Amino acid sequence: MRPAIRAEIITIGDEILFGQISDTNTQWIGAELTSIGIRPIRKTSVGDNAEDILSALQEASQRADLVLITGGLGPTKDDITKQTLCRFFSTELVINEQALELITGFFAKRGRAMTELNRQQAALPTNCTYLENRWGTAPAMWFEQEGTVFISMPGVPFEMKSLMENVILPRLRTYYNPPVILHRIIHTVGIGESFLAEHIEAWEDSLPDHIRLAYLPHLGQVRLRLTATGSNRDTLTNELAYEVERVMPLINKYVFGFDNDTLEEVVGRELVAQGATLGTAESCTGGYVAHRLTSIAGSSRYFLGSVVSYDNAVKTRTLGVPEEVLQQQGAVSEQTVKEMAERVRVLLGTTYSISTSGIAGPDGGSEEKPVGTVWIACATPTQTVTRLLKLGGNRLHNIQLTATYALNLLREQLVKIDEKPQIVHQQ
Amino acid sequence: MRPAIRAEIITIGDEILFGQISDTNTQWIGAELTSIGIRPIRKTSVGDNAEDILSALQEASQRADLVLITGGLGPTKDDITKQTLCRFFSTELVINEQALELITGFFAKRGRAMTELNRQQAALPTNCTYLENRWGTAPAMWFEQEGTVFISMPGVPFEMKSLMENVILPRLRTYYNPPVILHRIIHTVGIGESFLAEHIEAWEDSLPDHIRLAYLPHLGQVRLRLTATGSNRDTLTNELAYEVERVMPLINKYVFGFDNDTLEEVVGRELVAQGATLGTAESCTGGYVAHRLTSIAGSSRYFLGSVVSYDNAVKTRTLGVPEEVLQQQGAVSEQTVKEMAERVRVLLGTTYSISTSGIAGPDGGSEEKPVGTVWIACATPTQTVTRLLKLGGNRLHNIQLTATYALNLLREQLVKIDEKPQIVHQQ
Repeated sequence: MRPAIRAEIITIGDEILFGQISDTNTQWIGAELTSIGIRPIRKTSVGDNAEDILSALQEASQRADLVLITGGLGPTKDDITKQTLCRFFSTELVINEQALELITGFFAKRGRAMTELNRQQAALPTNCTYLENRWGTAPAMWFEQEGTVFISMPGVPFEMKSLMENVILPRLRTYYNPPVILHRIIHTVGIGESFLAEHIEAWEDSLPDHIRLAYLPHLGQVRLRLTATGSNRDTLTNELAYEVERVMPLINKYVFGFDNDTLEEVVGRELVAQGATLGTAESCTGGYVAHRLTSIAGSSRYFLGSVVSYDNAVKTRTLGVPEEVLQQQGAVSEQTVKEMAERVRVLLGTTYSISTSGIAGPDGGSEEKPVGTVWIACATPTQTVTRLLKLGGNRLHNIQLTATYALNLLREQLVKIDEKPQIVHQQ
Repeated sequence: MRPAIRAEIITIGDEILFGQISDTNTQWIGAELTSIGIRPIRKTSVGDNAEDILSALQEASQRADLVLITGGLGPTKDDITKQTLCRFFSTELVINEQALELITGFFAKRGRAMTELNRQQAALPTNCTYLENRWGTAPAMWFEQEGTVFISMPGVPFEMKSLMENVILPRLRTYYNPPVILHRIIHTVGIGESFLAEHIEAWEDSLPDHIRLAYLPHLGQVRLRLTATGSNRDTLTNELAYEVERVMPLINKYVFGFDNDTLEEVVGRELVAQGATLGTAESCTGGYVAHRLTSIAGSSRYFLGSVVSYDNAVKTRTLGVPEEVLQQQGAVSEQTVKEMAERVRVLLGTTYSISTSGIAGPDGGSEEKPVGTVWIACATPTQTVTRLLKLGGNRLHNIQLTATYALNLLREQLVKIDEKPQIVHQQ
C-alpha cells in the first residue's frame, strides 16, 4: 500500500496566536483533506512575523508532501505572507494581469470603489500558479518545490472554503490520487466517555489493526470515530459497516446518528418522515433550541416557531401559563415546563413541542435550586414527558447542554425510547 | 527591556487534525497568556501518535520558555500523552496518592461508580509536580527541564479553563513575573477592512514602533487591535489611550465598543442605563438574535422575550401581522418587518423591539428576492426604522450577519445615530 499523502496546515496571524479570533478554518480544512484521503499530520499557527513564518515553512517542507497556508493576504500593512513566500522561494512580487482583472471586476460588480491597496493584492510571487478567487479580493497561489506542494489561501473563512471546494480540492484529487482513509462516526448522547468505554471494551479490543477507535466527548455527546486505512474503498467500507453492526447492539439506545448527522438534523428528518411539526417555548435557553433547529436548511417544513418566554410575564400573558403555577412552583419547576410545552403546542398548532426553564447562571441560584438546575419537557399528541437536569456552573455550557438534552428528549419521543433515567447529571 | 516569555501551545488528538472537533482551547489559552504578558509564538496540533508528539515537544523545547500541552489525558486507550511524556523525560508512571484521592472523591461526590480506567488516571510521570484538578478526573502536570516549563492539561474545555484560571495562571504569574504587553481593541461594524484602512491611514503610519496595529474582520465587524510592548504598564496604558483618542474622531460612527465588548453586551448596557426593555420577532434568524442577547449574564433585566415566527401562520396568529400585508408584500418585505417589530413590541410590552425576515438560503430565493435578501426593523417608542440587507449565499453566515446588523440597528437607535446607508452589502 502506498503511504498516505502527509499534509501540514499553517495559519498565519497574530490574532490567532493571541486568541483574538477563533480559528475555524483549520478544523474545516482537516476534515476536507481527510475526506479525500490526505492525512493531516500537523497544524501550526505562527504570528505576522517573517522569521516565524519562514521557519514554519522550512520545517513543514521537510515533513510533509503538501503544505496549506492560510492568512496574511489581506490588503493592509500587517499582512506579510506574500513577501515572506517570496523570500522562501527566492523570488519577487509582480502584478498578475489575470488576478488584477478579477479584482477589478469584483469591485465593479459590487459598485464599490477600488483602492491602491486592493490593486496591490494582484501582485504575486513570480513562481506561483495563480488560483482564481472569485469570492474575494485576496489571491490564492500554488507552488511546487522539491516534491512538496505549497498552497497559500486567504484566511477569510468564506473565501477559503469557496476556494477549497471549487478550485483546490479538485486539483489536489487529480494531482495526488491519494490512498484510501475512511471514517465512520457514531454519535451518542446521554452517556459519559468512561461508561461508554466499559460497554464496548471487548469489541474495542477485537478491532483489527488497520481500524482505529477514538472517543470524542463534547457537550453531553460522545462521538465514536472509527478510522480505517487501506487500499480498497469497497473493502474498507464493508469492514467499517461490519464493525458498526457489531457495536450497535451494545449502545443502541444512546446512538442518535452517524457521520455528519447532528441531533437537530436527525430530529428534523424524523419530523418530516412523520409529517409532523414542532414548536418551542424557551426560558433559560433563550432561543438557542430554535436557533439550532433553524440552522438546518429546509427546517421551515417542520419548525413553525417559538415563544422565548424569558420574562415571567411572557410565560403568563403570551403562553398562558397560570399565575398560580409560577407563584406556587416557581418558574424553574416541572409543572411550569409542562405548562409551557403544552400551551405552546396549542398556541402554535404543532404536533410536538419542547420547553426549557432553568437557572443558567452565573446568578439566580439558591440552595434548593442551584445554578444548573433545569427542567425540560416535551409535549406530544398523547402525553407530556419531563426531565430534571443537574448541570454545572458555566452559563453558555448550561444553555448548550440544555438544548442538546431537550432535542434528545424529543428524539426519544419521536422514536419511542422510554427507558432513560429521570435525572441527568452533567457529562 | 527584558525579552518576553515565549510560549508554545501543543494540542494532541487525531480528532483535531482530522477536523472532527473544533479546537476552542488554544484561542482561549492564547488570550489568557497574552493578558498576563506571556507571548504565544506558536501553536501546534499533532495526532495521537508518540513520534509526532515527541518531535513537537522537542522542537518546542528549543524555541520556547513555556510549553502548554492539552489533550490525550482521557481514560481511554487512544490517550497516550502521559506515556509519551514519560519517554520524553525518560521516566515512568506511578500512582500519585494525592491524585487518586481527588479522583475517588470526584466520583463519590457525584454518586457515580469508578472504573479501573479512572483509577489509572492517577498514574503520573515521577518527575512531575501534580496540579490539582478539582473539575474532572484527568490530571494536570508541571515539569521543568533545562530552563523550559512544560504543563500538561486535559483537553476538555471546561476542565482546562478551570485549571488555568484557578491553578496554572496564578502559578505562571509568580514564576515568570513577565514583561508588559498591552492590547486595546476597537470594535467597528458596518464598514469594510479596506475602507477602514483608508480612513485611518495617516494615523496608522504615525504609530510609534512599539505599538502595532492589526485589522481583524469577522462577520460584518472589523476589530482594530493595538498591541503595545514595553516595561511600564502605566506608560503603555497612557500611550494606548492617547492613540485611541487620536483615531476615534476618524471612525466614531462605526465604533460600538472596546476590548472585550460584544454588540449584545453594549446594547444590553445601554438598555439598562435607559431603564428600557427589549423583545424580538424573528423569522429568518430563527431565535439567534434572542440567543445572542440571552448569552449575556444578567440579560433578564432588559430582555423580556421573543416570538420566533418562522411560519407565516405564527406571524399572523401570534404576532397579528395582517394577512393582506403578507399576501401583498410577501413575508420578506419592509412592511412585514415593520409590522413584526411594532406588534411584538406591544405584545411583549417592551420599550424597543427588533425584527428580521429574509431568505437565509440555500433555497427559497427568486430573481426579485435572491438568497441573502433580508429586511430588518427596529421599533422604538417614537418610530420604526427599517433596513434592507443584501447578503451572500451561505445560510449560517446570513443568519449571523443579520443578527449583527439587527443588533447594530438597535444600537443606532439607542445612541441616536441616524446617518447610515439604507442598503448594506455583505462585508
